Amino acid sequence: TALMPAYATNMRMKFPIVALALEIITIILFAVFVVYDDGKGHGHGHDAHSNKTHPEPAQPMELYPMFQDVHVMIFIGFGFLMTFLKRYGFSSVGVNLLLAAFGLQWGLLMQGLWHLEDGKIKVNILKIINADFSTATVLISFGAVLGKTSPVQLLIMTIMEITIFSINEHLVANVLEANDVGASMIIHAFGAYFGLAVARVLYRPGLKNGHDNDGSVYHSDLFAMIGTVFLWMFWPSFNSAIAEPGFTQLTAVINTYLSLAACVLSAYAISSLVEHRGKLDMVHIQNATLAGGVAVGTCADMNIGPFGAMLIGLVAGIVSTLGFKYLTPILASKLGIQDTCGVHNLHGMPGILGGLAGIVAVALGKKKGGDAAMQAAALASSLGFALVGGVVTGLIMKLPFWGQPPDQNCYDDSIYWEHEESLAHADHSKNKAEV
Amino acid sequence: TALMPAYATNMRMKFPIVALALEIITIILFAVFVVYDDGKGHGHGHDAHSNKTHPEPAQPMELYPMFQDVHVMIFIGFGFLMTFLKRYGFSSVGVNLLLAAFGLQWGLLMQGLWHLEDGKIKVNILKIINADFSTATVLISFGAVLGKTSPVQLLIMTIMEITIFSINEHLVANVLEANDVGASMIIHAFGAYFGLAVARVLYRPGLKNGHDNDGSVYHSDLFAMIGTVFLWMFWPSFNSAIAEPGFTQLTAVINTYLSLAACVLSAYAISSLVEHRGKLDMVHIQNATLAGGVAVGTCADMNIGPFGAMLIGLVAGIVSTLGFKYLTPILASKLGIQDTCGVHNLHGMPGILGGLAGIVAVALGKKKGGDAAMQAAALASSLGFALVGGVVTGLIMKLPFWGQPPDQNCYDDSIYWEHEESLAHADHSKNKAEV
Amino acid sequence: TALMPAYATNMRMKFPIVALALEIITIILFAVFVVYDDGKGHGHGHDAHSNKTHPEPAQPMELYPMFQDVHVMIFIGFGFLMTFLKRYGFSSVGVNLLLAAFGLQWGLLMQGLWHLEDGKIKVNILKIINADFSTATVLISFGAVLGKTSPVQLLIMTIMEITIFSINEHLVANVLEANDVGASMIIHAFGAYFGLAVARVLYRPGLKNGHDNDGSVYHSDLFAMIGTVFLWMFWPSFNSAIAEPGFTQLTAVINTYLSLAACVLSAYAISSLVEHRGKLDMVHIQNATLAGGVAVGTCADMNIGPFGAMLIGLVAGIVSTLGFKYLTPILASKLGIQDTCGVHNLHGMPGILGGLAGIVAVALGKKKGGDAAMQAAALASSLGFALVGGVVTGLIMKLPFWGQPPDQNCYDDSIYWEHEESLAHADHSKNKAEV
Repeated sequence: TALMPAYATNMRMKFPIVALALEIITIILFAVFVVYDDGKGHGHGHDAHSNKTHPEPAQPMELYPMFQDVHVMIFIGFGFLMTFLKRYGFSSVGVNLLLAAFGLQWGLLMQGLWHLEDGKIKVNILKIINADFSTATVLISFGAVLGKTSPVQLLIMTIMEITIFSINEHLVANVLEANDVGASMIIHAFGAYFGLAVARVLYRPGLKNGHDNDGSVYHSDLFAMIGTVFLWMFWPSFNSAIAEPGFTQLTAVINTYLSLAACVLSAYAISSLVEHRGKLDMVHIQNATLAGGVAVGTCADMNIGPFGAMLIGLVAGIVSTLGFKYLTPILASKLGIQDTCGVHNLHGMPGILGGLAGIVAVALGKKKGGDAAMQAAALASSLGFALVGGVVTGLIMKLPFWGQPPDQNCYDDSIYWEHEESLAHADHSKNKAEV
Repeated sequence: TALMPAYATNMRMKFPIVALALEIITIILFAVFVVYDDGKGHGHGHDAHSNKTHPEPAQPMELYPMFQDVHVMIFIGFGFLMTFLKRYGFSSVGVNLLLAAFGLQWGLLMQGLWHLEDGKIKVNILKIINADFSTATVLISFGAVLGKTSPVQLLIMTIMEITIFSINEHLVANVLEANDVGASMIIHAFGAYFGLAVARVLYRPGLKNGHDNDGSVYHSDLFAMIGTVFLWMFWPSFNSAIAEPGFTQLTAVINTYLSLAACVLSAYAISSLVEHRGKLDMVHIQNATLAGGVAVGTCADMNIGPFGAMLIGLVAGIVSTLGFKYLTPILASKLGIQDTCGVHNLHGMPGILGGLAGIVAVALGKKKGGDAAMQAAALASSLGFALVGGVVTGLIMKLPFWGQPPDQNCYDDSIYWEHEESLAHADHSKNKAEV
Repeated sequence: TALMPAYATNMRMKFPIVALALEIITIILFAVFVVYDDGKGHGHGHDAHSNKTHPEPAQPMELYPMFQDVHVMIFIGFGFLMTFLKRYGFSSVGVNLLLAAFGLQWGLLMQGLWHLEDGKIKVNILKIINADFSTATVLISFGAVLGKTSPVQLLIMTIMEITIFSINEHLVANVLEANDVGASMIIHAFGAYFGLAVARVLYRPGLKNGHDNDGSVYHSDLFAMIGTVFLWMFWPSFNSAIAEPGFTQLTAVINTYLSLAACVLSAYAISSLVEHRGKLDMVHIQNATLAGGVAVGTCADMNIGPFGAMLIGLVAGIVSTLGFKYLTPILASKLGIQDTCGVHNLHGMPGILGGLAGIVAVALGKKKGGDAAMQAAALASSLGFALVGGVVTGLIMKLPFWGQPPDQNCYDDSIYWEHEESLAHADHSKNKAEV
């Protein structure tokens, strides 16, 4: 045991106990609170409309294809997007699965508690879409601290963040009655600034000059493109899943489809403009091409016109790419915010842009019944909950007994994953096995 | 030709002749028996309900999104799950495609023969879902013998296994009238024990001490995670595709979604508990996280409660992970069952667990009209057909002229795939090309 | 700057300016011409049926799952299919995203201009499916010139090809009133021969003896299989997306499903037959297995019988595999057509086969109201527009200021992508990082 460093030994009991305890507590809470939806409740519409009854017969599986698109974004999209690091692919896709699998259970409870029917949470497709959504906040924050945190720390972040998210979501949707159909504010901006606050609290001066493993190799960048492209393709489902059925939902699909398409062109153009010799940078392509989906979120179901959606996407692609190039290094060096995946550029700034676009669009009367002041309050609320919640969560995560990796083992799967033998073996058989 | 070993030469005529002959025979059988569904038959419900007529107008495409989810599980899910081997990725995803493409045609015939209408098999979406299902049994068995069999042997296994599966399926669904909506018994347990019986008959003493190529490299494990995550995400579709439409189908989705989520937590926890220094093992994450989908299959459309589904998932994750760690080595060393992918842990034990859970759930009245004795008979029938069918099939596959690989060429694509030049080339250009 | 070769410097301003200018012009055109569909137009059926009004209430999201399948084919399918080259994965999936994202916007305009309602293009799901379709032509042609063209050249090709495609599509569907539901003629044959004509004009004698980077490595072939399998799985959606709803659409799904399944068997059989020692060749598996989807396209919604679809698939798999083996080298050496991906074998010949099968099927009365002469005219028109359009486009692309790569830098991402540091880094950390 002299050969085993303390940090590794620590995981042995801590992680299994935390994971099993959380799951068992969750199952008990489900036994008390959760039942199947039987179609006899108050309706199956969007949360914001849950007070009105639907006269038409319920079609419980109507949203299921949308749900599966969102599901793919959460598990393949976010999971593989983060596999760009050369030595951290197992953790990226594996811990993504762990956090999302726990998070969706916790999200079902936290979101459901605000909408009890006869003291019960009645699960249906809309609720599991929203549960998947709630995990997105955690996966965004995960991107900010990727490579520098242990699975135990991240499970703690999952509980904290989803709980706080559910409070803010309730405030925004039900108290302020603000519009945020694609969740630019309550998921993207919230998740990004929550994660950045956590990253600030967990600042590691030892990584100030970079880390050998904080980079990609050729094939890790291709794995990441699987995540990018699935996110890009299914984003129209993300932004329209809980929209009002019919032509409003169609509007949300079309706005998102067009915003993303325009965003690709501007992200590629700016990437080429700012890189040496006009080349493209994979980091920009993997991330900034998605900013149009984030930024059009709040306005997705509004009557902003197809060209309006494209303008939002165009601006988002520019802002996001410039952020990766110029802002992320400054955040790290000046503010002590080490944002591994650059979530500030993909979710943070485009999320705020989405919120601002929503304020303008509502002020211009693009959404019946909208109120620009409430939109602004929703943005402020999301940012406030994110920053305060992130700092508190970061302080808890900073406690020294959660198995966090030492600086030299950051961005390295081998600290939490058993594959030394595989590595040794592969080195041995390199000439024949590796290509 | 002195340089060409006999086993390789053998493939040249055998494989093309077998493959083309099978396809031509199949096309002739289709010409005789298969027509499009025109909506004028006896109804389009689940097999077990095919006697009642549906008064409502048929919607022939209603199940299509479900079909596509299942299709992805069969071709991407199973195909990539098996790419974890460092030198056997072409065969895993390529032969998976071959077997499934032939199997679905054969399955359409074998399943359809039990339900002829006017002497014809009327193809519709439900039938092609069931055809895809029938191939799953073969792909599960493929996992048990992966790396140790030739494409010709595997085509033979496909014909035999799907034929036997279709008999057992008919017995279970139409004679015993047992419930198995997610096919824990008739697909998962059946496919696993069929494959294990084949593996036993094809036992290779020469591989007793392992094989250099029977392991993964870093990126092969990431390719396998593509398979894992797609299986995990779309499993709710697998378990609900042929459920009764409406709220019963919704129940099947929710039970599977929750069982899988709980299973992830227990699989991760137990993996960390049993591995050195509390680390996670990729083999467990790739496989045991899916056991919850298998185990909740039989009960998926029953009123077991969301927490009941989660309990089943929790137990399945534990059983499966422990199986990989402790049981698989014993099966190999004591019983001569060399189970390459550990299908006993992912499909075998969780399939039996699912069958047992179904017996208990039906006994507790969780399914209207169910009969616990018939559930037990269905489980026994599935295991019996699997073991006897597997032994017979294994004996046929053992005949010495099907091009099976010698021990030293097991787990190696280069015996059946043309890529030496590519390899040579890559070695040459290693310094620039490989990262 | 003495160290920067001229070709690379050239990209710096050209690409950003071209990309941004195109996007801004497109947004202006959208502002003038494009509005959301509000359901008050002349109906939402297939173009060919757009004159009849639909009495039933519009369901604007009905085709959305189909659209998402097509979307996956365009962005994952085509994108990853082309990642087989060992050093060109970034360009394959990245430039695929760029061209498709721009192409769908341009396609929406070009296709929509033929069907203005009150001077406007009303976007709905059918229109974005067709916009995605229009990009497929470009992505097919991209395969012919892969590795030998710059992003600027390819953007030019996108504008030209989609414009010409839209004219031919209008002619075939609305003037000739020919049937081509799965677009064997107007997309596959058109895209292939357009690309081959461009490739001919851009003939590079310097690549006559091959190129070090014009080949695959083990894992690049696995990435390509992601593309292959997604294309294979979702092809039934491609061929049925715009079919008449109901049983006709079901027919298109079943014909495509069965044609593809039969095609797999014949592609594998012929691959083994023609390769050394009966082995399988990854190039054939990645491509020829899909020829059945192409070839059944025109007939997909016709009453050709399930076995008829299988026969078409069987023949397509044979023709395509033989083409890869024997015809592609001849085209390169004798005709100066260097077809990087072999699109002639996957899209060209199977597309013509599909067109011919359509003529025969219509002549045999398998499609109500069809006219064999019009089918033949449609095939001729598609080939004519493709060849003439491709030559003109190739001449424009050949102008010397579009940043095209010199011969020695062909098939190499590093000319357009910033990843030298990553490569240098990876070489440095090879022993630990690469497996």
